Amino acid sequence: MNTLKHLQLLIEQAVTDLQYPVQPAELYEPITYILSVGGKRMRPALLLMACDLFGGDVNNALHPALAIEVFHNFTLVHDDIMDNAPLRRGKVTVHEKWNPNVAILSGDVMLVEAYKLMMQVDASILREVLEIFSNTAVGVCEGQQFDMNFERQVNVEIADYLNMIRLKTAVLLGCALKIGALIGGATMVDADLLCTFGEQLGIAFQLQDDILDVYGDPDKFGKQVGGDIISNKKTYLLLKALELADAQIKTNLHQWLEATQFDSIEKVKAVTTIYNQLDVRQHAEQEMYNFTTQAFSALDKVNLPSDRKQFLRDFADSLMVREK
Amino acid sequence: MNTLKHLQLLIEQAVTDLQYPVQPAELYEPITYILSVGGKRMRPALLLMACDLFGGDVNNALHPALAIEVFHNFTLVHDDIMDNAPLRRGKVTVHEKWNPNVAILSGDVMLVEAYKLMMQVDASILREVLEIFSNTAVGVCEGQQFDMNFERQVNVEIADYLNMIRLKTAVLLGCALKIGALIGGATMVDADLLCTFGEQLGIAFQLQDDILDVYGDPDKFGKQVGGDIISNKKTYLLLKALELADAQIKTNLHQWLEATQFDSIEKVKAVTTIYNQLDVRQHAEQEMYNFTTQAFSALDKVNLPSDRKQFLRDFADSLMVREK
Repeated sequence: MNTLKHLQLLIEQAVTDLQYPVQPAELYEPITYILSVGGKRMRPALLLMACDLFGGDVNNALHPALAIEVFHNFTLVHDDIMDNAPLRRGKVTVHEKWNPNVAILSGDVMLVEAYKLMMQVDASILREVLEIFSNTAVGVCEGQQFDMNFERQVNVEIADYLNMIRLKTAVLLGCALKIGALIGGATMVDADLLCTFGEQLGIAFQLQDDILDVYGDPDKFGKQVGGDIISNKKTYLLLKALELADAQIKTNLHQWLEATQFDSIEKVKAVTTIYNQLDVRQHAEQEMYNFTTQAFSALDKVNLPSDRKQFLRDFADSLMVREK
Repeated sequence: MNTLKHLQLLIEQAVTDLQYPVQPAELYEPITYILSVGGKRMRPALLLMACDLFGGDVNNALHPALAIEVFHNFTLVHDDIMDNAPLRRGKVTVHEKWNPNVAILSGDVMLVEAYKLMMQVDASILREVLEIFSNTAVGVCEGQQFDMNFERQVNVEIADYLNMIRLKTAVLLGCALKIGALIGGATMVDADLLCTFGEQLGIAFQLQDDILDVYGDPDKFGKQVGGDIISNKKTYLLLKALELADAQIKTNLHQWLEATQFDSIEKVKAVTTIYNQLDVRQHAEQEMYNFTTQAFSALDKVNLPSDRKQFLRDFADSLMVREK
């Protein structure tokens, strides 16, 4: 078994080796730029890991792994236009560095390039792999649309929120694992179990993100604590608080949500107090625990020796204990 | 052989039958909307025609034909954002009817849906078909980028202009014919010849468009005569005029190009007079004739009875004699 670090290095090297035409520069330079900005290459590493797990040669999975990374970066480029985001991983976003038209069009080419990379699998699984990839791609777009809708929507059900984070974040993790498993020679049953593992873990990870935004140690978390509260982001915590609050607390909470002039520190403190009154952290942790349990339960059912699966268990643990 | 009209009707019906999920509405309603706005369905009809030509069952080609149509409409939705176009085929564009974010994201889904439709071919040609489609998709994006670059660029070479219209318009026609031929059971040699036919004809058609914009009968052409002149669009005619003009004519032409305040009719008349002085219409017609000749020469080499090919000849003639 290759270590995660080794797999991440493999990806890093393969990303650096990707060659695109020189002209038109406005189309291809943004692709090289956004891919070089980095990130942890977690998604493609998961694909390689799944392939490795079933005894496949990770070199056969390298192009599909890059496909996942290029696809992920395509979604970042387009999402950043839609969210009007100035920065991504501390660097200027493509639509800011160039312009929105360049970001739209180079994003489009990235989606096509992702398909070209994903096609580099054995003919026996080609159609299956492309179907999984296409359905995932549609799901990710649906997730982004739901996310944008929820910003304007007054009432969002928790079930709809969980479905949104599943689509926007988790399905791509499941897809990476499933395709990696198929390349590695797994049966469809095992590939599906691994997909469930990735999807459920992805939802758990996103819930943890919601919790850490409020309760995380700012030194370890790397983001401003309370950022979601300041921006009224409809996180699990906020939705649960709105669900559980009695009339008086709800009025108080809505006053903070509707306030246009406020002291940020004061708002974060007040809303956190409400969250504490309603035990929303415990609810979120319970939900997170449920998804993690389902993830591990699926992994348990995968038909492989337990020590092989330990690798993914350790990976999941490392994701889920960033803080506590 | 099916008539063009019959094939267009088949497409029309299949487009109407396309079903997309109800939610999220902002993602899927624009797809149904733009597809319903219509157009002549020429590209998918060409795909069916090529399949039919080689004795294939057009029903086996219907999903790939739809893929071409959905892809084409994806490019329209994204191009209209980039060009800030208010109308498309006389109807409000997607980014105007909804907003640019909706247009970006539903366009993205359309590209994925196009792949899903294109995948519905026999396993024996799946990889080939997807490679042709992907390379074409990249080419179309490159063409759009070159087109946007040329707007800001002072000097554009005619060779670069011809390459731009080839990528932006012609390669998709070639792609449609090539994929249709492969589905119909053609050899790669014949499929490539048909591809060349489509590509060269596409360039000729685009050159004709440039000519008709200035010299067309407004009643038959359906567009404002001189629109390209008014907007300083770098057409073949303008580029050729800039190439042929002596110092005095060049100064005169540049005065019109740089004028910010002008009477439209006067500008069209003056620039047309310059075009006439330089015989650019004859040059454009010669170029158009060269591409048409190359198109027919490729078609002649296709290994099929002449009477079968007459169908495509008639089709090409019908495209190329809209005016004269």
